Amino acid sequence: MVSTQKKADKTYKVIGTRPVRPDGLDKVTGRAKYGADIQLPGMLFGRVLRSPHAHAIIKKIDTSKALALPGVKSVITHKDLPTAADIALDLGETTSNMKWLCDKVLAAEKALFHGHAIAAVAAVDPHIAEDALALIDVEYEILEPVLSVHTAMDKKTPNIHPNMKTVDMIARFQAGEPSKVQINNVASILDLELGDLDAGFKEADIIIEREFETGTYHQGYIESHNGTAQWNENDEVTVWLSTQGHFNARDVLSKLLQVPMSKVKVIPMEIGGGFGGKIPMYMEPLAAIMSKQTGKPVKMHMQRDEVLLATGPTSATYIKVKVGAKNDGTIVAADAYLAYESGAYPGSPVGAGAASMFLPYNIANLRAHCLDVIVNKPHTAAYRAPGTPAAAFAIESIIDELAEKLEIDPITIRMHNAAEEGTRTSDGRLAPASLAVKELLEEAQATEHWNAELSDPSIGRGIAIGAWGNAGLESNAYASINSDGTINLNTGSVDIGGQRASLAMQLAETLGVDYDSIKPQVSDTDSIGYTAVTGGSRTTFASGIAVVEVGNKLKEQIIDRVATFWEIDASQVHYGDDGTLNGPEDKSIKFSGIGKILSRTGGTIQASATVKPNTQVATFGCHIVDVKVDEETGKVDILRSTALQDVGKAIHPAYVEGQIQGGILQGIGMALYEEYYYDDKGILKNASLLDYRMPTSYDVPFTETTLIEKPNPGHPFGVKGVGEVPIVPPLAAVANAIYNAVGVRPNILPVNPRRLSVLLKEKNKK
Amino acid sequence: MVSTQKKADKTYKVIGTRPVRPDGLDKVTGRAKYGADIQLPGMLFGRVLRSPHAHAIIKKIDTSKALALPGVKSVITHKDLPTAADIALDLGETTSNMKWLCDKVLAAEKALFHGHAIAAVAAVDPHIAEDALALIDVEYEILEPVLSVHTAMDKKTPNIHPNMKTVDMIARFQAGEPSKVQINNVASILDLELGDLDAGFKEADIIIEREFETGTYHQGYIESHNGTAQWNENDEVTVWLSTQGHFNARDVLSKLLQVPMSKVKVIPMEIGGGFGGKIPMYMEPLAAIMSKQTGKPVKMHMQRDEVLLATGPTSATYIKVKVGAKNDGTIVAADAYLAYESGAYPGSPVGAGAASMFLPYNIANLRAHCLDVIVNKPHTAAYRAPGTPAAAFAIESIIDELAEKLEIDPITIRMHNAAEEGTRTSDGRLAPASLAVKELLEEAQATEHWNAELSDPSIGRGIAIGAWGNAGLESNAYASINSDGTINLNTGSVDIGGQRASLAMQLAETLGVDYDSIKPQVSDTDSIGYTAVTGGSRTTFASGIAVVEVGNKLKEQIIDRVATFWEIDASQVHYGDDGTLNGPEDKSIKFSGIGKILSRTGGTIQASATVKPNTQVATFGCHIVDVKVDEETGKVDILRSTALQDVGKAIHPAYVEGQIQGGILQGIGMALYEEYYYDDKGILKNASLLDYRMPTSYDVPFTETTLIEKPNPGHPFGVKGVGEVPIVPPLAAVANAIYNAVGVRPNILPVNPRRLSVLLKEKNKK
Repeated sequence: MVSTQKKADKTYKVIGTRPVRPDGLDKVTGRAKYGADIQLPGMLFGRVLRSPHAHAIIKKIDTSKALALPGVKSVITHKDLPTAADIALDLGETTSNMKWLCDKVLAAEKALFHGHAIAAVAAVDPHIAEDALALIDVEYEILEPVLSVHTAMDKKTPNIHPNMKTVDMIARFQAGEPSKVQINNVASILDLELGDLDAGFKEADIIIEREFETGTYHQGYIESHNGTAQWNENDEVTVWLSTQGHFNARDVLSKLLQVPMSKVKVIPMEIGGGFGGKIPMYMEPLAAIMSKQTGKPVKMHMQRDEVLLATGPTSATYIKVKVGAKNDGTIVAADAYLAYESGAYPGSPVGAGAASMFLPYNIANLRAHCLDVIVNKPHTAAYRAPGTPAAAFAIESIIDELAEKLEIDPITIRMHNAAEEGTRTSDGRLAPASLAVKELLEEAQATEHWNAELSDPSIGRGIAIGAWGNAGLESNAYASINSDGTINLNTGSVDIGGQRASLAMQLAETLGVDYDSIKPQVSDTDSIGYTAVTGGSRTTFASGIAVVEVGNKLKEQIIDRVATFWEIDASQVHYGDDGTLNGPEDKSIKFSGIGKILSRTGGTIQASATVKPNTQVATFGCHIVDVKVDEETGKVDILRSTALQDVGKAIHPAYVEGQIQGGILQGIGMALYEEYYYDDKGILKNASLLDYRMPTSYDVPFTETTLIEKPNPGHPFGVKGVGEVPIVPPLAAVANAIYNAVGVRPNILPVNPRRLSVLLKEKNKK
Repeated sequence: MVSTQKKADKTYKVIGTRPVRPDGLDKVTGRAKYGADIQLPGMLFGRVLRSPHAHAIIKKIDTSKALALPGVKSVITHKDLPTAADIALDLGETTSNMKWLCDKVLAAEKALFHGHAIAAVAAVDPHIAEDALALIDVEYEILEPVLSVHTAMDKKTPNIHPNMKTVDMIARFQAGEPSKVQINNVASILDLELGDLDAGFKEADIIIEREFETGTYHQGYIESHNGTAQWNENDEVTVWLSTQGHFNARDVLSKLLQVPMSKVKVIPMEIGGGFGGKIPMYMEPLAAIMSKQTGKPVKMHMQRDEVLLATGPTSATYIKVKVGAKNDGTIVAADAYLAYESGAYPGSPVGAGAASMFLPYNIANLRAHCLDVIVNKPHTAAYRAPGTPAAAFAIESIIDELAEKLEIDPITIRMHNAAEEGTRTSDGRLAPASLAVKELLEEAQATEHWNAELSDPSIGRGIAIGAWGNAGLESNAYASINSDGTINLNTGSVDIGGQRASLAMQLAETLGVDYDSIKPQVSDTDSIGYTAVTGGSRTTFASGIAVVEVGNKLKEQIIDRVATFWEIDASQVHYGDDGTLNGPEDKSIKFSGIGKILSRTGGTIQASATVKPNTQVATFGCHIVDVKVDEETGKVDILRSTALQDVGKAIHPAYVEGQIQGGILQGIGMALYEEYYYDDKGILKNASLLDYRMPTSYDVPFTETTLIEKPNPGHPFGVKGVGEVPIVPPLAAVANAIYNAVGVRPNILPVNPRRLSVLLKEKNKK
């Protein structure tokens, strides 16, 4: 195991250490509470009837036989959801998004994908609920499914949503105008432009244009979706669930269930993985409605096939990129066309992919034309650096090819074009001050891995870089000091990857106390102010800022209290880095002693903070990978994997390394193994983890990591979000390594043995 | 039903209304969670072996047979508790109190009362645990029990605690000196003095000296004590319990279990009555220790007999009072001697009783000599206006006798001596500005009840007044505004009598919003700053101040945000009483619209507050009661009951009336029905609610109430604590009514038929 850390200059007492996570022992001893552990008196069990068709008109649903089955307490269909009119009437807001959400949780006029929820049942046990599903009669009129972006946009293909209009995002944002262009099944278009594209291409000595495709990938969290709802007589609803954002869940439930936010209490349970896929809700509204109908709590828990069938995977993509460069390697123009599947409802991350793909580079003339395309597949959801792995695969493959054609080392060509402070990014913003692309590439060039000999002609080495812009968004924190000097810390951030530890460490550092003296907790929606989802690489950054603000407020009060206690002016009290307070005449009190003066100086010291930081910071990662290709079978083995990443400041380096190693693994899964297989009727053929092939520790070696610490000026300790960018480079890095080994460039991922065999055969024909 | 409210001048929008309590529907539908509802995976059930002797040396405890019983997982004795040395070592504090607590939860060298916990068992089901108790062999050496204050203080009676020294509270407080007086089994003495007692008595035309006794009364909460503890591998302990103060529980558990406060999470469940008796802990430390030993959660739940045997009832008392008055009714001197049973460990409320008994009166020369006496009975606990009903019984009986002897109306004599602003109280403090004794007596004099004819010679009418000083103490509150304009309010105050409603109402009034838009919640010890127990008539007052402070902080921020939104200066924004904000040029935004501007002006608005108000305020109550006495049997029937009380400002008048009616009922129980019967071996003979006779609705008519609102200047809305004083006057009022009916003055309470028959026989002999 090699793990390297290029430390920032400033040293800290707690930050940078690797303490045990507060939830660790509870998790390994089975005591941590997940959604599946919820048991309530009189609880019913809910199940969902799902569409066997990818695209069908629902002509009739007869629930009478199911309702008659003994033990069945409730059967609901789309009619039991509020209508668009209800929601508009009660909440005075536009109904569009709520209409999509209502239709997603229970199909209205049409079933839009294989697995689409049609009806839900609550019964006294899950087996009866399952039996009842078979008793629901649904009459479908089967329609032709739309299964690719190309078919979807074909003029001959009817709109899946008949009334949907294409939205021009720039026009709408800038002038509120509707789109002039209307494309079948395209929910929105977005054009990012910089410089003069034609002039750029005119300067080019070489132009490469290639097409790329990536598949539909699932986040593959081990814990399946679950939610339990209890609707009380006073119209207060409590929901226990597995989510990345319980406040988001609360707000959506409040609108969908038509009760005030204060009446919805959402309790986030421990979460067994999310990666973006645990932001949307699927069953919780159904559980709540059936709880209201029956007066009993209702628990719902997806089977594994339901997770794959009916929750949000990534967008499958079609991307065409044209890049022009001079002979010295300077990229002068880049033009990208990105068509992303958004699934059954609008909202793919195509814009994020387009914005991120060019972020590492300083390219004067740019365009990205983005299309959000409706198809008869599940509505896509966020997945770690949403939309970006596919886009990076495209640009990084072309840059690898450029390097080869121009006979420039692949690191050198990237260094030559690397973005720096002041570089314009594809969305026209200035790149941030702490941009670290060059440092990253220099470190990559210096690694033992990059410089090691390749021992065998069937072995190839690839490199790629990637970027992800950090999110800021709102976070709340609250802390109070106990009379023994220990501290309780509450935040609204769900803890997926160790946030309780990384936030407690930031408070400990701020106050100069031991990590162990802080007890962090994830508070429910009733107990702390609104906090945005754990996602977008924002939590350690933004909730960290909230926690540091709380720490500083506590310090101010501590100084005042000690001054009161010593009967001196607060200006005479010095708060030391180690949490010791000093005053004149050798007066001194340790932090642990402060608890004892609280009661006589006015009571507990507590503080709360709301933050909503803006951030322009992006994080950059680099992946070096060695593969061995079996030309006979097309099988690719990963032999060695090294990741480098600018992490700003690693609060808990082991967790940062874990994030990088996990992201790399998922990226390799996208490159080589994972994929949804739909037949021509739109039926998902591999809705199980036996057939949906995720890499395991047998497939991928331990990834060596190098953490580069170039502090983020927008965070008190320099934190940058680290969790997403690692998934970005591996797709291209693996593809480039395959080319390096066997001389063929995969343009469709995953490049499984079947696809690679085809490419190898074509090469051998030539 | 007659309920009258003398309103304060200021009118409010929410305060003074009678909305439904937020926990009401959950409670009546059985959905509210009490401690008994806790079910955890692998949970064990704990039971306690109790001493069959009132006073005995524990020579040996053999737990081997119990441990060998299949299904038994843990058997603990006092040896499993930390020693005094452990606690001193780890916590650096004096060990005295912790030693008493450790000995109370599991007897050490001696069993000190019938029912004293000797050992505890945890087993896989409660029946096995119960069976295991019978297998624990305890060898006792039985000692003579000490069962009255008189026996206890006899020089021939050995000290129950051999090393205990009498503490002189005044000497210790003033000079840290030990007591010069040492009295057997007296834990402490306290002397309150005012003026010149001898000179006072010299002025007197009449002197009356009488002796009084009151019995041991239990608070009689319907929900018995329960507690469940889960000790996790990381030494974090979670405790669910029925308590009036979860922070107090946490702090005690932290010391006793020797873990930091931050590692103890105490979750207060709904509470089925407390009245002071749910402040101490009994089983929770045992459950925690057995959970640590077994690795499983342990639940303990007292049987009813255990509640009566082994939890803290009131002090039985012996009180002698001598009062001197002039012929015009002016009381010139009063001398009280109060000996209160504290039970097996120090700490009776004798000082509170002494301080409160003279509070309604302006008496220039006073003395109260207080003794805290150890006896072989359960350690007493607080019970509504602790120590005061007995003391008020004494003084109010004598004043009634004075009135009779001096031929002055009983209200007139009280009015003549009533305390007023500036009057010195028995502890030397000045009576508060909002003192309302005269108003109370004037209102009493004007009631229809007081002026009604008595229809029958066997019917008598009595009146008495009483006082209770309010507590302040620390409270914390936190609130945040949701984006739909609803508000979540968190406090650390356990809700026994409607605090969620009364605190939400104060926030609603402060913000000018509807009561319904606020969702109040009782937060656990991890989720808010330290908050003292719900008791001492402090919660609506002190937590109310915290909530109003939070409201004012929210308002400040709202004004700033609206100013930002309107792009004007904050000084131009006017926050109206109805929650509407107005600005120049007819700008206006309702509170419900504020939620929508939060996100774009910096995020959620939240605020927190710590308060620790000092209060000098006392609350005064008056009880008028009509009784009918059956001279043949000594049976007393309550015919009519009227209560008047100065309530400062009634936030929720229905709850205030309920507090008064409940307190009156309990006071009548003390006067006529309730009592612990110990035999001469100290064995409690009536440890069941069949034999321990509490009054029911068959015994006592609906109490008519008059609320007098004289605002407390120390609270923004004028709140005074209302919950305790109603229990104070009934003992004397009933005794005075009996005298009025049949001409005998009960001096021992409860004056049950047996006791009253004896008095009536004596009278008839004369």
